[in-house]
Amino acid sequence: MPDIQDSLDRIAADMAGRMDRGEVAHYIPELARVDPARFGIAVALPDDRVLSAGDSTLPFSIQSISKVFTLSIALGRLGDQLWSRVGREPSGQAFNSILQLEHEKGRPRNPFINAGAIAVTDAILAGHQPKELLGEILRFVRAAAGDDDIHINHAVARSETATGHRNLALASFMKSYGNLINPPELTLGAYFHQCAIEMSCQQLARAGLYLTSAAGTPRMLGPDRVRRINAIMMTCGHYDASGDFAFRVGLPGKSGVGGGILCIVPGKASVAVWSPGLNKQGNSQLGTEAIERLASDMGWSVFGASHTANPD
Amino acid sequence: MPDIQDSLDRIAADMAGRMDRGEVAHYIPELARVDPARFGIAVALPDDRVLSAGDSTLPFSIQSISKVFTLSIALGRLGDQLWSRVGREPSGQAFNSILQLEHEKGRPRNPFINAGAIAVTDAILAGHQPKELLGEILRFVRAAAGDDDIHINHAVARSETATGHRNLALASFMKSYGNLINPPELTLGAYFHQCAIEMSCQQLARAGLYLTSAAGTPRMLGPDRVRRINAIMMTCGHYDASGDFAFRVGLPGKSGVGGGILCIVPGKASVAVWSPGLNKQGNSQLGTEAIERLASDMGWSVFGASHTANPD
Amino acid sequence: MPDIQDSLDRIAADMAGRMDRGEVAHYIPELARVDPARFGIAVALPDDRVLSAGDSTLPFSIQSISKVFTLSIALGRLGDQLWSRVGREPSGQAFNSILQLEHEKGRPRNPFINAGAIAVTDAILAGHQPKELLGEILRFVRAAAGDDDIHINHAVARSETATGHRNLALASFMKSYGNLINPPELTLGAYFHQCAIEMSCQQLARAGLYLTSAAGTPRMLGPDRVRRINAIMMTCGHYDASGDFAFRVGLPGKSGVGGGILCIVPGKASVAVWSPGLNKQGNSQLGTEAIERLASDMGWSVFGASHTANPD
Amino acid sequence: MPDIQDSLDRIAADMAGRMDRGEVAHYIPELARVDPARFGIAVALPDDRVLSAGDSTLPFSIQSISKVFTLSIALGRLGDQLWSRVGREPSGQAFNSILQLEHEKGRPRNPFINAGAIAVTDAILAGHQPKELLGEILRFVRAAAGDDDIHINHAVARSETATGHRNLALASFMKSYGNLINPPELTLGAYFHQCAIEMSCQQLARAGLYLTSAAGTPRMLGPDRVRRINAIMMTCGHYDASGDFAFRVGLPGKSGVGGGILCIVPGKASVAVWSPGLNKQGNSQLGTEAIERLASDMGWSVFGASHTANPD
Repeated sequence: MPDIQDSLDRIAADMAGRMDRGEVAHYIPELARVDPARFGIAVALPDDRVLSAGDSTLPFSIQSISKVFTLSIALGRLGDQLWSRVGREPSGQAFNSILQLEHEKGRPRNPFINAGAIAVTDAILAGHQPKELLGEILRFVRAAAGDDDIHINHAVARSETATGHRNLALASFMKSYGNLINPPELTLGAYFHQCAIEMSCQQLARAGLYLTSAAGTPRMLGPDRVRRINAIMMTCGHYDASGDFAFRVGLPGKSGVGGGILCIVPGKASVAVWSPGLNKQGNSQLGTEAIERLASDMGWSVFGASHTANPD
Repeated sequence: MPDIQDSLDRIAADMAGRMDRGEVAHYIPELARVDPARFGIAVALPDDRVLSAGDSTLPFSIQSISKVFTLSIALGRLGDQLWSRVGREPSGQAFNSILQLEHEKGRPRNPFINAGAIAVTDAILAGHQPKELLGEILRFVRAAAGDDDIHINHAVARSETATGHRNLALASFMKSYGNLINPPELTLGAYFHQCAIEMSCQQLARAGLYLTSAAGTPRMLGPDRVRRINAIMMTCGHYDASGDFAFRVGLPGKSGVGGGILCIVPGKASVAVWSPGLNKQGNSQLGTEAIERLASDMGWSVFGASHTANPD
Repeated sequence: MPDIQDSLDRIAADMAGRMDRGEVAHYIPELARVDPARFGIAVALPDDRVLSAGDSTLPFSIQSISKVFTLSIALGRLGDQLWSRVGREPSGQAFNSILQLEHEKGRPRNPFINAGAIAVTDAILAGHQPKELLGEILRFVRAAAGDDDIHINHAVARSETATGHRNLALASFMKSYGNLINPPELTLGAYFHQCAIEMSCQQLARAGLYLTSAAGTPRMLGPDRVRRINAIMMTCGHYDASGDFAFRVGLPGKSGVGGGILCIVPGKASVAVWSPGLNKQGNSQLGTEAIERLASDMGWSVFGASHTANPD
Repeated sequence: MPDIQDSLDRIAADMAGRMDRGEVAHYIPELARVDPARFGIAVALPDDRVLSAGDSTLPFSIQSISKVFTLSIALGRLGDQLWSRVGREPSGQAFNSILQLEHEKGRPRNPFINAGAIAVTDAILAGHQPKELLGEILRFVRAAAGDDDIHINHAVARSETATGHRNLALASFMKSYGNLINPPELTLGAYFHQCAIEMSCQQLARAGLYLTSAAGTPRMLGPDRVRRINAIMMTCGHYDASGDFAFRVGLPGKSGVGGGILCIVPGKASVAVWSPGLNKQGNSQLGTEAIERLASDMGWSVFGASHTANPD
């Protein structure tokens, strides 16, 4: 098996020369300003090492990757009760689709499409002020990453609030079916701020270590729940490209519209990659490729070793 | 970690006493006659051992589990060309839904929903007689299982042909979009017969060994393709309950309306279970539970060890 | 042909004894308090006569019937430009469905489903304060009815605003597609107040006279536009029961969730009926029946005379 | 009011020079050969006069216009029982859509979309041979038109049978829900042949006279049923352009993919127009315009007189 650092270096070098970088999300004005040429990647290992290449210390907007952390908090706090509010099936639709909400009476398919993540945030907001909840989310992420230098970019949050009509439609729709506890604006306030958390690849990779269930990693949640979050990342983590990501990479992952992807190698490693340009499904174009190569190089697919590696 | 045989025995004993066995599929008249009290389970290991409990030597109709074998044949013969005919995303719809076919111009979402499996069979039928193709499928399955005593139940195939109007609708619809090479009746003839293959749990578990990529198992297909078939089994193997199966079991699997499930533990084992009663999504009710318990007992989830086992 | 007053008297007498009155809308709390036993009907003729029976002078909440008046104002002000914002096809869906909005990029099917009516109100609100627009709508309705004693029930408007999450979802969704000029809250404020106009059957029948195009009636709009509004009332006036209303009654009509229906007999008469109980599609149950009988008695169907009347 | 013949002459003259004629249907090979430059129009009056212009004596394939005649036969034979098999609401979808069939368990929305017309043909075929039914349909049409020289073009019927996979999908789908009495192939055989009836504009206009309910016209059906067929023509006669046809023309009409339209002026006239080129919704492009102009010239809209005519 090749050396991780070698693989990261080769990947970062190749990506630097690529012209087909996808398109930076333009519907959130603040995000549209990010330099599309950025590329960073980092691997956190249970033994505390963090290997990296490229722009791996530059913070970026984690956006929907935050849904993994709020789902973790919600399962820790509400347990299986959460599943009365949201399902755990792939939607087969775009991340912001409202179709199934109408067919299924306001219950979102899974916690990783927008409607589902809003429902999760709403569930843990209940009875608190958005500020308190955001404090809790930050504490969770900082503890997971072992790093207190993780913050919310309020300009990004405001930018989303001003243009977040689609998310307001989703929240109001759920509210009309009784599947939102708080006023839509309040829940969305918390939601937009959670999405505006900024982390570097190194921080994000470290923050994902608890999802590997490996010995020596922080225990933020019981192992059964960790395993299940991984399952949902595998089947639903990339919206209507989740099947393709599983097919190509073979690992649980969660992407964000800021161009980041968090990917878990159960028992072994946590990987974060960042490249702002997105493909048609709204997932980082080069980020997806980079993780595909890394997983192939290392034989990390959970579905069996690839051609370049022996079964362990 | 507990002993596999112990776990199988306890599971089979518990299942024997269960009253809530789901409902036997009644839309295929021949299948409706099966005794709902049957339960069998078998685990095939790379070292050639097969452990089992219950009715593990009784043949049953594998139905949609056959889609795994025809997909393997199709990938072996056509390679990635196949993906021009069928996608690899979860559909988020029932196994026999026609909705997405209309929205997506006759290209099925994945090879495991009915429309997709019909397209796969059509692709490998091209230029052959159904009889030849069925011969090839049987040869493939027999070679994989190392057992020549595997046959098609022609009464079941005829029974499906007579009542298969929904599948005729799917095939004709694809034909109208140019996504069917052969006449619908011809492709369906082959499809219904492939579904009517009968195998016991022991035979099926053995036939699945090539999907574990473990050393010493038959090499029916390159390791990359095996890995990818597993990925599709994980995200699409249980129709609109695929997310739930991944969540509960954490393993790639494929169910059939005859009450069977084939489940792969990459690198380690191939599991077959059979209980004819189905849950609402059309998957074996006790079969799903049995595999959930076995995977939990053995710490087999690909997403990390469960609470009762240590990470390996 | 029978006498109109005779027919009205017999209908009102029969309806008084009916037990199957449908269900009063309960999703708008203020409306839920209305006495379900009320029934009123009125016919306004071009010669200024108004015939009536039952509770024909009691004001009720006209709700969606207001959409006819705002469409008239919008066509008068914007002309055919309006059709870039909204279609004129039956939706085949419920009055508050959001499905087609997603499939059709935020452009509602017609001006009489909720989304379409919100778009129309938004179009004529542009550049004005809600108060100004509501003043204009009231002036239009009062002029059409020749009666200044027509008002908005602000308690009903507030009641809708507090519970109007579904409409907020529709408006926000259109906003996200750029098909809403004003902030959703502003447009909805105007929309909820326009729906809260109260009129009696006699007032409403008179207000509809301009839609008959009959000589001697107020000219609120050019005859071509009047004709076209009638066409839309015929094909879209009763949501997903529009076909059935055309089939049974044979006249252009528009229903409201307050239990009112305005029905136009081109060239001849304007009819208003009110009975608060609704059928499954959200249209007045006895109101629909009453108009069906009246139209049949008088041979008023635009599709040819019925069995009890001679062709004119 | 202008003279009918004058209007027809001017319309035919204008249409002769038009370049934007739409596209001739190419999915039925036999129809694709028709000369796109053809244009015919005819008006049949209750006093037995037939006025016409252009290619009004050339027979063309009436295709879906036949659905009006089979609906008439079905209502005559089965009465309101028919409505258990098919609805009478606009579908809001394309003529050959299968979406609603799945959502609504195999019951088509109305008798004029393909699925609905197949269900109607199936209902009247029950217990007969296709040949007998086709004989009955021809007898009905010939009696209505007072002309025995009306025939089926068997080459067209065969052409449709060979390429009718979409219709086979619709029929098989309904069969799977138990909403088809006969084998799909048998019903479709009758359906394709009924669509292959050929008539000239003059014959078709005359055949539609019974739908005017005017004194002196053939009585093929009770006046209530005639009125109701007109209502369905108005709301559903042009598929997902029915609303637009009502808006522009204001008359009940039924189009066919052969480029013909039959349009009824209740109490007054029956109009047939033919121009083979179709618009995007599959309705005759110039035919629609021609009828719009004629109806406007004559003040024939059922929704009130247009600007160029006085109310009658």
